[in-house]
Amino acid sequence: MDVTRQEAARLLLAAEDVLILCHRNPDGDTTGSAHALRLALRSLGKRARVQCSDPFPNRYSFLWQEVEAEDFEPKFIVSADIADEGLFGEGLAPWLGKVDLAIDHHVSHRPFAAHLLLEPDSASCCEVVCLLLREMGVDIDGKIALCLYTGMASDTGCFKFSNTTPRSHRLAADMMEAGAPCAEINKRVFETKSAGEFAAEREALNSMEIHFDGQAALIVLSAEMYERCGVTEADLGGIASLPARLEGVEVGVTIKERGPNSYKISMRSVKWVNVSDLCRQFGGGGHMFAAGCSLDGSLDEVKRTILSAVGAALARCPGSR
Amino acid sequence: MDVTRQEAARLLLAAEDVLILCHRNPDGDTTGSAHALRLALRSLGKRARVQCSDPFPNRYSFLWQEVEAEDFEPKFIVSADIADEGLFGEGLAPWLGKVDLAIDHHVSHRPFAAHLLLEPDSASCCEVVCLLLREMGVDIDGKIALCLYTGMASDTGCFKFSNTTPRSHRLAADMMEAGAPCAEINKRVFETKSAGEFAAEREALNSMEIHFDGQAALIVLSAEMYERCGVTEADLGGIASLPARLEGVEVGVTIKERGPNSYKISMRSVKWVNVSDLCRQFGGGGHMFAAGCSLDGSLDEVKRTILSAVGAALARCPGSR
Repeated sequence: MDVTRQEAARLLLAAEDVLILCHRNPDGDTTGSAHALRLALRSLGKRARVQCSDPFPNRYSFLWQEVEAEDFEPKFIVSADIADEGLFGEGLAPWLGKVDLAIDHHVSHRPFAAHLLLEPDSASCCEVVCLLLREMGVDIDGKIALCLYTGMASDTGCFKFSNTTPRSHRLAADMMEAGAPCAEINKRVFETKSAGEFAAEREALNSMEIHFDGQAALIVLSAEMYERCGVTEADLGGIASLPARLEGVEVGVTIKERGPNSYKISMRSVKWVNVSDLCRQFGGGGHMFAAGCSLDGSLDEVKRTILSAVGAALARCPGSR
Repeated sequence: MDVTRQEAARLLLAAEDVLILCHRNPDGDTTGSAHALRLALRSLGKRARVQCSDPFPNRYSFLWQEVEAEDFEPKFIVSADIADEGLFGEGLAPWLGKVDLAIDHHVSHRPFAAHLLLEPDSASCCEVVCLLLREMGVDIDGKIALCLYTGMASDTGCFKFSNTTPRSHRLAADMMEAGAPCAEINKRVFETKSAGEFAAEREALNSMEIHFDGQAALIVLSAEMYERCGVTEADLGGIASLPARLEGVEVGVTIKERGPNSYKISMRSVKWVNVSDLCRQFGGGGHMFAAGCSLDGSLDEVKRTILSAVGAALARCPGSR
């Protein structure tokens, strides 16, 4: 059942012993949303903890440094930034079908919770959470602002992507005034790379393939490369935007090896192609200009499947040569 | 003579036939400031044109597409974002000592104009110009907003750097509402690279040297490399932030070959080192975390000189290992 921000606020104010779920392969938005909610609920005297199938990337460690684990049997379950039950991952399997309130901003959201607060015009789930906390009367202090700013910045590529709205900027200004150390967060999230990440990026650059007369570019991140560079998939979160940066490219494809014959595909488009629609053909989804899906098969098969779909989408788009 | 925003507004409202100067090796801020001013003055029925020693980079071409050249003998000369007469370049030499009003935001500004509007707390010169245009009663339309947003975004690394303030975000929101196509600008300025730029970045990554126990990283961009990749120094504007991105690095140095035995050095620091002070030792300047200078000599001499100064600065800084 869809709920308004006011109704979601009432649900959370009435809740006790809250478990907050993040999507697998966590990014700054799911991490920031969940930790902001946790701090806010604690500030109201409630018990709350955050759970995720995968470990949180090291670059976001400042978000939960001061958090002690709270052990309790959850009475209310919230999901933050989870668009689909398929994104729960194995670690959250016990909670499938048990979510009381889903908070999300993905236009491709597939309802799975008893109550859904969905604001698809929001650039980030953290924007939704920020307005929800205000509705709840929570005092947004520096620590909460830090979490919220992290998600706002990371889901907009630091206010660079087309999902950024005037409200995104104004909420960021508010978070800054509430005490979020924005420059430090940005350095950590966007500007700092380990030697392994640098090495992986160099390899990705070297591996780039160009297709369809320069309209598509593709990179592959192999499990062997992760191993050799000492990085994880989550460490390379930003790398998916790399192929679409090449001048003239409309669709950028990043194929990440998840396991034997198992691949995660991230897509970015520049102007015309709706990659959310494109990824939905393969059971995935996301946003118009940034989406993803998973495919099984050999690397060659996966490449052929994806490139054929990309080629068809390019042929349909008005900017096609 | 220092002037207030109100006094600068009065000067510009009284001016006719205005020549607007940009600094050499133009970036988005000098380009955006100057073109915003030009459009604003034209909207007030005045003649105005923009001049720069170097060609404007192609990535900013959207700023002056609709501009016809206006030929006139200037009666009033304004400089936009020029911190020092040394940054005029040869093409602007006729105007040395003749600037009526300098508009700038560099803390290292060395006065050269009859009147100076200096706002060192501003993240970009475009923020100063935006508030100045409001003071002048100019209607900031979509085209002016496009110019102003370009400078605001490019000087803050798209609101990522420590110079970003809540005001920077709020002015960006205003520019967005005034009609600036922010996502397109950002794609052009931050997200699009030519094949040559990609190649140059790959070479830069491969050439990176690490010094002082990982606290400094250095890359060299040779004239031969510019030639081979088909790029100019201005095309690679953002590359100077690359070495400081490596985890653990405090000072990132980029050495760009300008000509035989002539080098431009760009420095970025992360937390402690004031690179503006550091570059001032060599006649340069800039901001605390981003500055530059020029040095003559062989590449080895220049490297030794710079690294020795960087080493001394690192030894003085509290975070030094």
